[in-house]
Amino acid sequence: MTAKKKKLGIIGGMGPLATAELFRMIVENTKSPDDAGHIRIFIDNNPQIPDRTAALLGRGPDPVPAMAVSARKLERMGADLLLMPCNTAHYFIDRLRKEVGVPFIDMIEQTALRLSEDGIKTAGILCTTGTMKGRVYADRLERAGISLLEPDGEQQTEVMRFIYEGVKAGNAGFDASAFGRVLNSLYERGAQTVILGCTELFPGIRMYGVEIGSYIEPMRVLARSAVGAAGYETVGE
Amino acid sequence: MTAKKKKLGIIGGMGPLATAELFRMIVENTKSPDDAGHIRIFIDNNPQIPDRTAALLGRGPDPVPAMAVSARKLERMGADLLLMPCNTAHYFIDRLRKEVGVPFIDMIEQTALRLSEDGIKTAGILCTTGTMKGRVYADRLERAGISLLEPDGEQQTEVMRFIYEGVKAGNAGFDASAFGRVLNSLYERGAQTVILGCTELFPGIRMYGVEIGSYIEPMRVLARSAVGAAGYETVGE
Repeated sequence: MTAKKKKLGIIGGMGPLATAELFRMIVENTKSPDDAGHIRIFIDNNPQIPDRTAALLGRGPDPVPAMAVSARKLERMGADLLLMPCNTAHYFIDRLRKEVGVPFIDMIEQTALRLSEDGIKTAGILCTTGTMKGRVYADRLERAGISLLEPDGEQQTEVMRFIYEGVKAGNAGFDASAFGRVLNSLYERGAQTVILGCTELFPGIRMYGVEIGSYIEPMRVLARSAVGAAGYETVGE
Repeated sequence: MTAKKKKLGIIGGMGPLATAELFRMIVENTKSPDDAGHIRIFIDNNPQIPDRTAALLGRGPDPVPAMAVSARKLERMGADLLLMPCNTAHYFIDRLRKEVGVPFIDMIEQTALRLSEDGIKTAGILCTTGTMKGRVYADRLERAGISLLEPDGEQQTEVMRFIYEGVKAGNAGFDASAFGRVLNSLYERGAQTVILGCTELFPGIRMYGVEIGSYIEPMRVLARSAVGAAGYETVGE
């Protein structure tokens, strides 16, 4: 018996490049012999959604109203399941759930599940200060019995510079060496793997050629979960 | 004076990977120091739109009703300009224009304009049999005073195999050597450049490592035209 096929809706623009990347990952992870076997996907790429970290730190406007507008637009388009390619945005997911009649696939929960399945006990985390202060990963991983190693205050400043002055600014000449040292220190402190807990990190690591050991990319976990949840077969890993 | 910013709508799914690629190209070609300076983009990735080539050759259902549904959905979302990352679909553009109140950016016209600006007099074309039989490029290039060199019948069969049995089927083991010889023969016959007139060709050429001389990728021309038409600055080439 084939599960009913579902249509996906992506609340995008947080950031735009991550949204394009999630879209590509969903297509590439869907097993299909032709176009017609692929998933119907609606996207609202809305880069004008207020910055999630700024809001979470009390320095900027609430992003939830704009996110809710996008969520409702996608629901009206026909989406059966909603996704957000932004880790920090997941801080607001419970408020968003009240705004729409269709469920979300929670990227953070899917990542915690995957780490548990892989038998990880200690994971490093790289993310925005908003995601960290909002305990977006901390709470969910604690519940899954996984210890989280976070960068210290100065190191976190480098992570934020990498995300905002490097990747989001499209700055090809950005010096990523300090960021590379922060990443290394997580492995040195005993991280079995590192969660790339901001959707700008993986494209940035590739763009700047930063060396990396074992890692988990939540957006890829989300893409594969979404393919399955929509009732399609994923390609082999 | 800044031009009013416009929102883009993409009738996608023809094919899905090309749609993800157009989206990425638009983002990467938009000059912006942060997320907020990027373009609002709505996408309906609808891989169930009937095959355009099959319809054009009288062997499959008319794709226009499904395309029109997507176009109207995007218009209702708020799109000011519509784009289609599928060359063959442009055969139907005049019928689609009657279904919506917002204009299209025509990928084929933009490509002809670009070839004229570059002083090209003779261009080779690789495209689906539908695009060729429908004279999608032939008519527009003729009007621009550009001669078109097309593959012969047997060669065209190889182009279609490359698109359908290779790229669209996601077949990593496909043998692209016959396709490579078709491409070469266009340069040997005097093509100053080759139009990659199907959105699956460029990803395929990259995937299979096919060697290529001077070429023009209409989807990239479309991406850059769209950034400008939406009132944003393109990054330098």
